[in-house]
Order: sequence, then C-alpha cells, then structure tokens
Amino acid sequence: MTCSDGPLLLTSAGRRVSLLRLWQRAAAVRHRAVYTTDLDSLAPAVLLVDRSFPLPRVKDPAYLPELLRQVETLRLSLIIPTIDTELPVLARSAGQLRAAGACPLISEEAFIDLCNDKWAFGRAFAEDGFDTAAAWLPEEALDLGDALPRDLFIKPRDGSASQHAYALTRSELSETIPRVPNAVVQERLRGDEITIDALLDFSGQLLHYVPRRRIRTVGGESIEGETIDDAPFAPWLQGVLSAAGRRGARGPLTAQAFLTERGPVLTEINPRFGGGYPLGYAAGAHYPEWLLALAVGEAVQPRLGDYVRGLYMTRHYEETFTTRRPW
Amino acid sequence: MTCSDGPLLLTSAGRRVSLLRLWQRAAAVRHRAVYTTDLDSLAPAVLLVDRSFPLPRVKDPAYLPELLRQVETLRLSLIIPTIDTELPVLARSAGQLRAAGACPLISEEAFIDLCNDKWAFGRAFAEDGFDTAAAWLPEEALDLGDALPRDLFIKPRDGSASQHAYALTRSELSETIPRVPNAVVQERLRGDEITIDALLDFSGQLLHYVPRRRIRTVGGESIEGETIDDAPFAPWLQGVLSAAGRRGARGPLTAQAFLTERGPVLTEINPRFGGGYPLGYAAGAHYPEWLLALAVGEAVQPRLGDYVRGLYMTRHYEETFTTRRPW
Repeated sequence: MTCSDGPLLLTSAGRRVSLLRLWQRAAAVRHRAVYTTDLDSLAPAVLLVDRSFPLPRVKDPAYLPELLRQVETLRLSLIIPTIDTELPVLARSAGQLRAAGACPLISEEAFIDLCNDKWAFGRAFAEDGFDTAAAWLPEEALDLGDALPRDLFIKPRDGSASQHAYALTRSELSETIPRVPNAVVQERLRGDEITIDALLDFSGQLLHYVPRRRIRTVGGESIEGETIDDAPFAPWLQGVLSAAGRRGARGPLTAQAFLTERGPVLTEINPRFGGGYPLGYAAGAHYPEWLLALAVGEAVQPRLGDYVRGLYMTRHYEETFTTRRPW
Repeated sequence: MTCSDGPLLLTSAGRRVSLLRLWQRAAAVRHRAVYTTDLDSLAPAVLLVDRSFPLPRVKDPAYLPELLRQVETLRLSLIIPTIDTELPVLARSAGQLRAAGACPLISEEAFIDLCNDKWAFGRAFAEDGFDTAAAWLPEEALDLGDALPRDLFIKPRDGSASQHAYALTRSELSETIPRVPNAVVQERLRGDEITIDALLDFSGQLLHYVPRRRIRTVGGESIEGETIDDAPFAPWLQGVLSAAGRRGARGPLTAQAFLTERGPVLTEINPRFGGGYPLGYAAGAHYPEWLLALAVGEAVQPRLGDYVRGLYMTRHYEETFTTRRPW
C-alpha cells in the first residue's frame, strides 16, 4: 500500500485527544496535517484541530458518499478509524476509498468480521491452536445443562461496550437467554485480564506489541494502567498476533486475554487503536510514526519486546471551552 | 476567619487536576504552595504537585490525628475538601484544626449535616419558602398509597453518587423499599436539571454564582456542559443561596435544581466544589482568588450575575506517566 501525501483523517475522534496529538506529532515531521470528524460538534478532538467536519451516522446510507466527497475535496490520505462500528463499513468500502485517493488504515474485511463475532472468533483461534474462552450458542448451552461450567457470561455475538452483557450462573441461563439479542454463552475466566496494544505491517507481519494491565476503569475506559513484562507469555502472544496477521489483521490491534491457571486465554481482538493506547505509546509503541513510514513505502523493522515495563499511566480530565459550536 | 500564610491542602484530590491548577494559580500570586493528599498514590493530583502524602480513610480513627500531625509538620493553612464523605469529619474537627493552625474551607456543621440528609434538606428549604422535591419517609409513602405521584425516586437519605438510587413507579414501591438502606422516597421531577456553582463569604453572604446545564456525563461526572442565563430564575436562585448562608453555608457550594412547569425546584446542595466547577471558573467564578483574599482578611465584593452566558465546556483525558508510585 502506498498512499498519497495529503492530510490524515481521524474518524469518530470524539475525546481521543491524546491519540490525535500523537498522530499530529508524527504527521508534523512529514509536514502533514490531521483533520477530525465526529457526530458531536462539542467533541474536544473536533475543536482542537485546524479543520474538522461532520459526517452522517455510520449506518446512514449518506455516510460513505459524504466521506468520499470529503476525501476528494480535502485530498485526504490516511483514514484512521477509532470505533468498532465504523470498521465493517470502511472495510467494505476500502476499494472505493482507495480509488478516491485515500487509504483506510484497517484490517482486511474477513478479519474485521471475525473480530465482530465473538463465537466465530473463539472457534477460529482455537483452530489455530490457541486457548480461547469456551463458548456456546444458546441451544448448545441449554442442551449441555449441568455439563456447563457454573460461572458464565452471556452477551451478544456482535456486541460491544458491555451492552447486554451479564455475568450469570448456569441455573440462571434459561431465563436470561431471551433477554440477550444474538446471544453467545461463554465460560467466565479467572485470572488477571491483560490488554495488548500491537502493530502489524500492511502484509500482516507483527512489528511490535505492549502488554498492559488495567488498574482502574471508568465507563469501560482505562484511567489507570501499567505495562507488564511479556516474559511469561511472549511466545504465546507472538503466536496469537502472527496468526491474526495470517487471518487478515493489518495495522493497529488491541487484544485482550486472561492469564489463567491453565495458561493465557485469548478473549477478543479489536482491530483498531484501544482507548488505553497512550500508555502503549509512552512505553515505546510509536505506531503513528511507523505507520506513516509504511504508508509512503518505507521499511519498518520489527521491534518485538522493545518497550518499558512497569510504566504506570493515570488520567484526569482536561477542559476545552468555546462559545461557538462548529455544527 | 483569618488564616496563616502556609501551604494549602487539597484533600481527596484524586483526578481533580483542573481544580488543583486553579488553586495553584491563585496561590502562586501570593507565593504559596498547594499540597495534595489521596488514598490512591496513582491519583494524578498526587503526582502533579511538589508535595503530597497519604491519609488514612476518612472513617478510620487515625484520619484526624494524622491530618493534625501533617498540619503541624507542614504548617498547612487552608484545607480544601473535595468529596462529601470528608465534610462531616472536617466540620466536627474544625476547632481542633484551627487550634493546630489550619482553616478548613467548610460550611458550618449544621449545614453540612442538613445537606447530608435528603429528607431534612427538602423540609428545611420548604420551610424557608422554596419549592423542593416532595419527599416521604418509607412508612409515610406506603400510607399515602395512590395519593403518591406515579413516578418516584427512592434513594438513601444520606446517599451520594447515585448509589442505591432507583427510578421507580408507585406500584413498585413496597417491593423496593427493603432494598434501600435508610430510604427516602421523592417525586420524580420533569424539566431541565441545572447545576449552580456558588460562593458565599465566611459570614454567609452570597458573593457569586454561575448556573450551568450538563449536556453529557460519564460515571456521574459532567464531560460536556454549558453556562445558562440566570434571568428566568435569578431572584429565586439568590433567595435559595442566601437562605443557605443563613443556615450556615460558607465558601463554595454546588446546588442542583429542576426548571419545571411549576417553576424552579431545589433538589440538593453539596457544600464543596462540584466536579464541573472548571466551567464555572472559565465563566468568571474565580473562587480560589477570592477565597484566598477572604482568608487573609481582605474584602471581596459580591458580583452577582457577572459571568459569561453560553460558554461550553468539553473534556478529554490527559495522561500522566510514572515508573514509581509514591506510596
């Protein structure tokens, strides 16, 4: 992939000002600008750039035509998505976007669809030889009865942000299934949950990763975290991320796993920058710089294991004020 | 009240870095420092000052002796609390703290106790002639039966942060009451909810206020807001805040009310800086400067109505990194 040298676009940029600033820092070295878009004209990332514009909701038929129009008008190059709901739309439109001159920074459609289906995702990585959370479709789970583990989760196969997700016990299953749309039942894992920021190049080769632990979250977002040593699980992690590359993962990923008594267990991969990625960057994951190099055809060497262990992140709110909403 | 000229202390400072910076700005003009304390050594306000220290939990018998020890050791002057649970302890210990050389920036004990009892609070301000949310103790509510409004809230009389607070209908009341400790039942108000940052001097005279509207919240904290015009309710608001002063309110307050069809209805007052106060400051509520003036015996004139209307605030996370936890 070789992309034009126009401005970059961070979509659904919302409150991701730190991610925006990291991209701005990398882009400035190459004399390039970063623009933003969001539904909410009061989103800080909309107010803190030279240029921003609204787009229709991602499920609106007008979304893609309007995005294509902006790509042509503003000569946009890299498109950097930040939320899960945009990924399938951008993946299916990648050809049209490239024809218009833009490069969506995104995995292949098949991998995005796989990550968006918690049941299929677990089966695929189990086929690749990795331990994943045991999962059953509702009818399978009900048939198994007492053969199921006692402690379970139920959630939508295509859900996100803990919507309709419940911890429950086996005996509560039959009454809970009807309340969860498109449900999948999973075993409830015990152990430390870890998050991994990772980067693959545009051919799917693993370039870098940083594992971290969430210490405290608010509204699902990490507000305190710590990078951890990969020594106990480095071969496993490199195997998982390389398998993701073979299945079509490209660019930035955020993986989640539990370190259990039976070893590391993969739970999900989000093929985009995670909310806690600023900690990864501070520990050495300089992905915007490396992605901009890749985007103009420069080589980037893998740097596996090269990051600061035991680095803490803690977050507070910063305010932006205005008397005028841009839209 | 005249206080010493030693360093200031922001207690339970946590993530309130913007409030800390506003105090630092005001204190620097007078060549004074601001220290912080928090249970959590990863709290950003702990890491972003020259000096911070831990204190026991506020309900621990060791809390006050340790605070008094620090007051004497560090020659602390103004003590600025930020969370509700500290207010009663500091109010009851105000004499001891003053004897040790510190001035707790706090309302009188009777007013703090009143604000901490949602049932008594509503009755007191109703006696003062202000419309408050109708409220009943559980047995009163059950006796009233169908004479109650259909839409209700139930919450602990002394609760905070929406813990054990439920919206419910009249018919669900008898089954819900046993689940709420120390319950009070309130009518559910309809209309725009507003928040008011306000300042009273140390004799209880109203000096200033800024009314604002929350546009968006995360985890109970305002992440988007807008200051609003006080014209439709200025006499009512000035009456409420002056009544609070007569009942022992001193220093910073955060009041909440609904603008309903029957007029403004007062719901609660928190006798401390509110989480969204940085918007008030930006709109003209320069309370740290004025409080420091009052604390050294200078006069501060009331500035009622003097603030920027239609000022928006929007918030994003800012990260602090460290490889070392201070405790």
